[in-house]
Amino acid sequence: MPLRLSTADPRFEDGFRGLLHAKRETAEDLNAAVADILADVRARGDAAVLDYTKRWDRLDLTADTLRVTAAEVDAAVSACDPATLDALHLAAARIEDFHRRQVPDRQDYVDAAGVRLGARWTPVGAVGIYVPGGTAAYPSSVLMNAIPAKVAGVPRIAMVVPSPDGVLNPLVLAAARASGVTEIYRIGGAQAVGALAYGTETIAPVDKITGPGNAYVAAAKRQVFGTVGIDMIAGPSEILVVADGQNDPAWIAADLLSQAEHDTSAQSILITDDAAFADAVARAVELHLQTLPRTEIAGQSWAEHGAIILVDSLSQAVPLVDRLAPEHLELAVADPDALAAEIRNAGAIFLGRYTPEAIGDYVAGPNHVLPTARSARFSSGLNVLDFMKRTTLVGCTPDSLRAIGPAAVTLAEAEGLGAHALSVAIRLGQGT
Amino acid sequence: MPLRLSTADPRFEDGFRGLLHAKRETAEDLNAAVADILADVRARGDAAVLDYTKRWDRLDLTADTLRVTAAEVDAAVSACDPATLDALHLAAARIEDFHRRQVPDRQDYVDAAGVRLGARWTPVGAVGIYVPGGTAAYPSSVLMNAIPAKVAGVPRIAMVVPSPDGVLNPLVLAAARASGVTEIYRIGGAQAVGALAYGTETIAPVDKITGPGNAYVAAAKRQVFGTVGIDMIAGPSEILVVADGQNDPAWIAADLLSQAEHDTSAQSILITDDAAFADAVARAVELHLQTLPRTEIAGQSWAEHGAIILVDSLSQAVPLVDRLAPEHLELAVADPDALAAEIRNAGAIFLGRYTPEAIGDYVAGPNHVLPTARSARFSSGLNVLDFMKRTTLVGCTPDSLRAIGPAAVTLAEAEGLGAHALSVAIRLGQGT
Repeated sequence: MPLRLSTADPRFEDGFRGLLHAKRETAEDLNAAVADILADVRARGDAAVLDYTKRWDRLDLTADTLRVTAAEVDAAVSACDPATLDALHLAAARIEDFHRRQVPDRQDYVDAAGVRLGARWTPVGAVGIYVPGGTAAYPSSVLMNAIPAKVAGVPRIAMVVPSPDGVLNPLVLAAARASGVTEIYRIGGAQAVGALAYGTETIAPVDKITGPGNAYVAAAKRQVFGTVGIDMIAGPSEILVVADGQNDPAWIAADLLSQAEHDTSAQSILITDDAAFADAVARAVELHLQTLPRTEIAGQSWAEHGAIILVDSLSQAVPLVDRLAPEHLELAVADPDALAAEIRNAGAIFLGRYTPEAIGDYVAGPNHVLPTARSARFSSGLNVLDFMKRTTLVGCTPDSLRAIGPAAVTLAEAEGLGAHALSVAIRLGQGT
Repeated sequence: MPLRLSTADPRFEDGFRGLLHAKRETAEDLNAAVADILADVRARGDAAVLDYTKRWDRLDLTADTLRVTAAEVDAAVSACDPATLDALHLAAARIEDFHRRQVPDRQDYVDAAGVRLGARWTPVGAVGIYVPGGTAAYPSSVLMNAIPAKVAGVPRIAMVVPSPDGVLNPLVLAAARASGVTEIYRIGGAQAVGALAYGTETIAPVDKITGPGNAYVAAAKRQVFGTVGIDMIAGPSEILVVADGQNDPAWIAADLLSQAEHDTSAQSILITDDAAFADAVARAVELHLQTLPRTEIAGQSWAEHGAIILVDSLSQAVPLVDRLAPEHLELAVADPDALAAEIRNAGAIFLGRYTPEAIGDYVAGPNHVLPTARSARFSSGLNVLDFMKRTTLVGCTPDSLRAIGPAAVTLAEAEGLGAHALSVAIRLGQGT
């Protein structure tokens, strides 16, 4: 049974803190094993990657067959159901449209002192996208990682996807084509992360690696950080639904289960001001679980990590939401905007009764890679800026250096940095 | 003597690679010691912080004296030289003006399918700024870390600064006041990072920690990452000057030394197309070193990590710059804009002969916290967005859900996620 809490209960704060700080992941310590794999890939390049792929994916490749050919992608696309391809292309177009609006402008101006100032954004030179294989092969994840990179103008987008026993998901390859991936390698695990970070004879190194993976992949990303950039390390998925009693309990129950079915570590929380509605949702969850395909995963997640929190009024929900800082926040209430305006911490907000979170996983347009584990307090979902970097610009003339330079000399001297002071003073005609 | 390379030399590529991959820092392994300190602060709160402060800063504090009082800040400001305060306030005003232009707009629109989409930015709730004490107490660093947070609208900016033997730099306190810091604690080291991340009886926890520190501080920031956000872990400072033969060698030599004086691990590189100029700069460096106050540090940095690279033409410099991806790039050439347009990787670019890098350390306006160790390939300097987070917004009506929902159902089914499909289908009047 999921946790039940009520703000009317004097022990509420203890229960809520327990929910807030409950660990949902067992951190396996794979650091030493992963360090060995990375060092091996760095030292032996392709040969190491091929060895690990043979051992773990039971796949005998050569340097020539590491890369998926254009003909293979053609064949995969042809093998896809046309209606599914249409849905994929609709999703890709909507994601691209939303992300195009994130491309920042260059700034370039001369201020009152005559100093030229600005900032320009340039795309990262090459990006690696990690895509899980096997059962967790999600074409939507390819779109969400690759399209922002493409929109940013990244010239090289290299995708790695393991193909255990040689099997690749055709829709994953179709998604790669639809989202501007420029090269695909049939490898995975820490060895694929190492190949992207350090490069091999066949795979040129990239500057940044994004995308979800298992514990080996997460550990490898942490270890190569610095050599390359990485995106966040995603934790288990979460949804928080704030709903009044005017919703159909079966709808809200489906929303809660749409997170729960991801993973037994996923978390679904309902906050409502209506006790009878809370009970109705709990019953509807049990009903849905009788018919859904991933009932075992969803049922376990709901029982172990799910929660229903009863509040006196929905405004009481606001500080609880901010403390939970959920990845996904659904506001199934009459005036979602009024409630959203009071909330500070959430990765994405789904407004109103007709906006199930799953619409954002696929076709709404915003990115579905969002901050988990309360990190929405300080971080944002994946976006175009993650695939660009900003260079600031300063240009002084003799006059403008004369206007602001003396203050720099004063501060440099106060900090005891004589060469800093000298580099300005010497241009002002002052020896030191 | 600094390294000398020439692209005309057939062994140039080997030498350049050596420069590119040379390690400039000895990574001390402090992880276990730092983990113990953090665990102790988490368990014992103030008591642990007070114990470590007594041991390492030789300072006997109580919970009541941890915090620097407003009266102490008043007294510190009064103790500062008025001309230095003026320079500090000029710098603060210019930094604030530049950063105000980075505040992003909210997006909110309805697309062709009738779906409401958007993104809003909100400030991080509380930020901790780490400021080194002792000899490396830089008021400019306070301005550069705190002002972007203030401009972002962060309501709580808590600064920690160690005061060994009770000594605090008055100008650091004046900088804190000038840049909107809301509370100051006289503590440092891993214990201060732990106090900010986990909170103690006296210090409320923050959501993000920024600012430079020693190896203990860097290790502590890495370890608390996830509990809170952190900025980048800064490496030794770097400058790359691209200069033609029309510069005054003494000016360029001063610029190279302005990085070298930071730290024996700092790096200064000159790229020029004029061999005689290269020699003149090398001589000017030696001359300056005879008079500068930090000559030992600067001399060692220049001898061990400095480099002069001779190219046939300045356009040959472009790919070298992109591979070095310098923190600071000075373009002391006749047409700096033409050269800048070809370069992709640099933290900040200083345009023309009258723009010494040091002007950007203090008063130009852009941030001086910039990506080091080649990370300008994938990351940017500190800016207002680092103190805000983005929440995406989606809102469907019954009609717009009908327009895009079926594609979501199709993709959810293709991924085998039945509850995802159900949560959309049920709102379209389809059971499943």
